Amino acid sequence: MVAFGPDEREAVYKSIYTRRDIRRFSGEAIPEIALARILDAAHHAPSVGFSQPWDFVVIEDDDTKREIAGIAERAIAAAREGYQEPRKSDFGELKLEGITDAPVNICVTCDPTRDAPHVLGRNTMQEMDRYSTCLAVQNLWLAARAEGIGVGWVSFLYPHEVRDVLNIPHHIQPIAYLCVGYPEDGFPDEPVLQKQGWRERIDGDELVHYGEWNHTQTPAKQPHDCVSVDD
Amino acid sequence: MVAFGPDEREAVYKSIYTRRDIRRFSGEAIPEIALARILDAAHHAPSVGFSQPWDFVVIEDDDTKREIAGIAERAIAAAREGYQEPRKSDFGELKLEGITDAPVNICVTCDPTRDAPHVLGRNTMQEMDRYSTCLAVQNLWLAARAEGIGVGWVSFLYPHEVRDVLNIPHHIQPIAYLCVGYPEDGFPDEPVLQKQGWRERIDGDELVHYGEWNHTQTPAKQPHDCVSVDD
Repeated sequence: MVAFGPDEREAVYKSIYTRRDIRRFSGEAIPEIALARILDAAHHAPSVGFSQPWDFVVIEDDDTKREIAGIAERAIAAAREGYQEPRKSDFGELKLEGITDAPVNICVTCDPTRDAPHVLGRNTMQEMDRYSTCLAVQNLWLAARAEGIGVGWVSFLYPHEVRDVLNIPHHIQPIAYLCVGYPEDGFPDEPVLQKQGWRERIDGDELVHYGEWNHTQTPAKQPHDCVSVDD
Repeated sequence: MVAFGPDEREAVYKSIYTRRDIRRFSGEAIPEIALARILDAAHHAPSVGFSQPWDFVVIEDDDTKREIAGIAERAIAAAREGYQEPRKSDFGELKLEGITDAPVNICVTCDPTRDAPHVLGRNTMQEMDRYSTCLAVQNLWLAARAEGIGVGWVSFLYPHEVRDVLNIPHHIQPIAYLCVGYPEDGFPDEPVLQKQGWRERIDGDELVHYGEWNHTQTPAKQPHDCVSVDD
């Protein structure tokens, strides 16, 4: 059985703790071999029923990037309209995507028909294929960090428009749109949104419940936020 | 800027490539400090708008585990009924959960009201909070692997019943139910489902598309599987 020495274990934690969401990229190209390594790491994520439902669309073409950036610009402008001051001004200060700056963009998709109709373990949780795809994203993110490569997940997008630009079939779901490249200013010590005063890290102890849910423990919510949601 | 030496980089890849979905556990207890480390690693995952929407319910009580195992047994029996032979018999050979054997179970949940209504970046993709929670699961899984601790994600469950057993509020979504413990037979060299002939690993090159989606490239599908799905 493969065991991890103390230094190896520390290296894994180092990748987890020093990973950041990066939005500013230097112009430096990513070596093909490093790109291949992080994609292969993603492909070795766990998946429901070993269905491996992911695909990776790698975009290096400037015109395509510009088209996607156009989608992001509209989504960001739409979101900005929803904020009141002073959040609205704070929002304007944030760099929310790095699509055209990043040498590589990767759209990670989920194919719900792969292995269908009988994906082992998806019977009672249909969304397991999308969740599996997210695990692949995190493998990619941590592998990239170990390579010194930054990743930023751009969620300000309209997925159906991304699908059209990339000629992705209708039944395939775009899950993550990632900007990938060497960070312009290195990896910051703390999350950028924390650094910029947008949001603090929650005390992790508040999020661990023993035995069953502890109603007094989780971060306080505004009454209007306590809505009921579907499964 | 924190950089990774070649050995550190290899350690990160080692965690990714030697991680397995474990369903058979030895009776050995997990040290509290190791459990705390893997939970803290999970809490350091990326999240949309730095919303950190996750909670972790840690279950060590045998009665609670037995209740959850009862849910899994029914979900597994229901799934088994859906298979035709020879898949049905193969299915019966698989060990699909290790709930009562694992010293620790962890239910990872998502709170869609945390930071609501304005979670930065969730505007056009509401499901980003659940995706963030999955990233936390993968951090936990890789950290556990580096600790020599096995993790198995049990998706044969009815999430609303899990919620009831654990007294989780209705608006909180159970995302992952994890069995956590030292593996009985170590970490197998290849995924258990591959070893048991259920499913082979896809050639990773088939899943990478350059520039845009390549329709000739992805694994062949049965015509009846090519359904259209909602976003």
